[in-house]
This record gives sequence, structure tokens and C-alpha cells, in this order.
Amino acid sequence: MKFSPSLTNLIEALRCLPGVGPKSAQRMTLHLLERDREGAMALASALETAVARIDHCSLCRNFTELDICEICSDTRRDRQVICVLETPADVLAVELSGSYRGLYFVLMGHLSPIDGIGPREIGLDKFRDRVLEEGIAEVILATNPTVEGEATAYYLTDMLLPRGIKVSRIAHGVPLGGELEYVDGNTLAHAFTGRRQLLQEQ
Amino acid sequence: MKFSPSLTNLIEALRCLPGVGPKSAQRMTLHLLERDREGAMALASALETAVARIDHCSLCRNFTELDICEICSDTRRDRQVICVLETPADVLAVELSGSYRGLYFVLMGHLSPIDGIGPREIGLDKFRDRVLEEGIAEVILATNPTVEGEATAYYLTDMLLPRGIKVSRIAHGVPLGGELEYVDGNTLAHAFTGRRQLLQEQ
Repeated sequence: MKFSPSLTNLIEALRCLPGVGPKSAQRMTLHLLERDREGAMALASALETAVARIDHCSLCRNFTELDICEICSDTRRDRQVICVLETPADVLAVELSGSYRGLYFVLMGHLSPIDGIGPREIGLDKFRDRVLEEGIAEVILATNPTVEGEATAYYLTDMLLPRGIKVSRIAHGVPLGGELEYVDGNTLAHAFTGRRQLLQEQ
Repeated sequence: MKFSPSLTNLIEALRCLPGVGPKSAQRMTLHLLERDREGAMALASALETAVARIDHCSLCRNFTELDICEICSDTRRDRQVICVLETPADVLAVELSGSYRGLYFVLMGHLSPIDGIGPREIGLDKFRDRVLEEGIAEVILATNPTVEGEATAYYLTDMLLPRGIKVSRIAHGVPLGGELEYVDGNTLAHAFTGRRQLLQEQ
């Protein structure tokens, strides 16, 4: 005995969501059909609308419904600085921190030759042209401190520095509120290497 | 700064799924848009099809696309026995165990006066009529061994026994492969109360 076809089909379809295995998919399906058919219909239409409308910003590659996203077209932002990061979620995190007023460039991934993702796939060729043409003052590298993120940052440095562009990398170290005892060794090593000398106030 | 409207809308819509909070919903949305737009479209149509087609079997209340579900219309099954359980997932579990060949009645919940769920909401009035009319030989109660499940089982017993229907409750005790050491006290108490005398083979 199995569930009826369209039920089985929905269980199968839910598995395209990351982190959803067969058991959760079954639980979600039964929940939706039993208790939230309205929610299910709303989800279906939200999926269709998003897939139809959302595309990449032609400047920063972030998701947007416009040709050029709201951040890229915001004239109050500092157009001399571009922060490079891996995903739209990273943009949101930086925006929420309120610590940055420049523009962004979203790689939508990182260099990963083993998966066939080279510089072109993450838009680095166009990015280089843009940085050179627009006379950008500084490129801030905010890729993740993972092997791939570091490799991507290294590649970008190598691409921009010889052309006279100022390149910087965000600081890595002990997070605020973190306790040294629980911070991993690599982070601690970064924190020591990146230490700053304190100067007597005058 | 926020995500664009249809993106925010999709994040919001995904939260109708049980166990999906704001962070997972965001992760799912970005994953779908970036890597699985086909999956997203398939999910949307699976949701619409399931909501449109799936209804309750008019006999056992299980989910089905037909008026009477495959199990209820299967003439090879024992039509004298009805097993009462709480959810379609329970039916699937029992079917997969291969230990039962009778019919089912799915409550789609359990008695829960505090949530306004009385006997009528879980279909017990019609169930009683059916059991009496069809001259069912035995009703097996397989509601969950929780407070509500036990209360529901008690209510059913009280409803059927005085009318001369044979009622039984599935056994609760130490699960196979379970170690006594790790079994909770209530289950052990059930295991002792429900012990069976062993007889010398003849």
C-alpha cells in the first residue's frame, strides 16, 4: 500500500527543499492537506511568482525583480567601494549590521574548479571590467573564511592588485561575545596574526 | 534593506511548512532560486494538484483521490475488522508492517475538548452507525499511547462495548530491539501490566 499518486508526488516534490528528507516531506504533506490547504495554495503561487519574476541584478548579480537592484540604483550610497560576497544572504547580513554604505558584488558561489565553477561562472570577468572602467577606489573581499572562499579572495586579489586597485579583506578573529575557550584553533590563529598594536592616546 | 517583494513573500509562504523557521525558509528560498527553479515549479504544481484532488475517503476518512479509497474498496481484505488510528501516517506504518489485513478508520486527530475537537469532529458518530449497521466483528483501537490517544480509546470503548461490539487495544510494552535499561518507566509499567502467562507446550 502506498499513499495516493498526487500525495506521493507532493512528498517527492517537497524533497527539493534543502534539509527535507522523506520523513519530513511526509509530515509536511499530511500537515498541509489536513490543516493548511490555504497555506499550501499560497506557497504554490509564491513559488510561481518568485520563479517568474526574480532574476539577477545586471550590476551586482544579487536577486532582484528589477533590471538593476535597489542597492545598485541608490544614489545615496558610496559608489566608490564594492564589497564582494558569496550569497544574497550575506548581503542581507551585512545590511542588517548597518556597518557598510557602499555597493556589493554577489558571486552567487565561489571558485570551485572541481565542480566546474571557474572565474567566468561567478562573473569575475565582467566584475574586473567594471572595477577598471568605473575607477573604483576600494574592493572589500568578504567571501567566507573557508578553503573555497579564501581561494576566491586570493584570485580576486591577484586579479585587481596588479591593476592598481586597492583591495582589502574583512577581519577574521574572535567574534564579539565569543569566549576564547570555545573558539576554534584556526579562528584563534587568525586573531593572533591579525592583531593590532594599541597606541597610547595623546 | 530587505529582499525584493516576491522573494520575501516566498520566504513567508514557506513558513507554513511544519518545522520551518525564518532562517530555514530563507535558505530554502535562496537554494530554490539559485539552484533548483525546476524543482520549485514542480513543487508548485504538486501542491496545486494535491490540494485540488485529495479528499477524505467517505468510509475510512483517510486521504484519497477517489470517493472510496483503495483499501476500503479492496475485496480481498477482511471486512469484519476495523482498526482505528489517528493519522494517515499511522495507516502507512501498519500497512508497511504487513501485520494487518482488515479495514481502517482514520480519526485525523484525537479527542481534545480544549481545542474544540469532540467526537463529531473526528467522525465518531458516523463510525458508530457504520459499525452497528455492518455488523463488524472487532474494532481494534490503535490510537497513540498519549493522554489524548488513551482518552479517545476510552471513549470508543465506552461507545461500542455496551452495544455488544468486540473491542481490543493494541499491546504496549518494550519495543523489539529495545533495551530495558533505556525504556521509560511508563512503558515498563505497561509491559508489566500487560504481561502474558507462558504455558507449557503440549
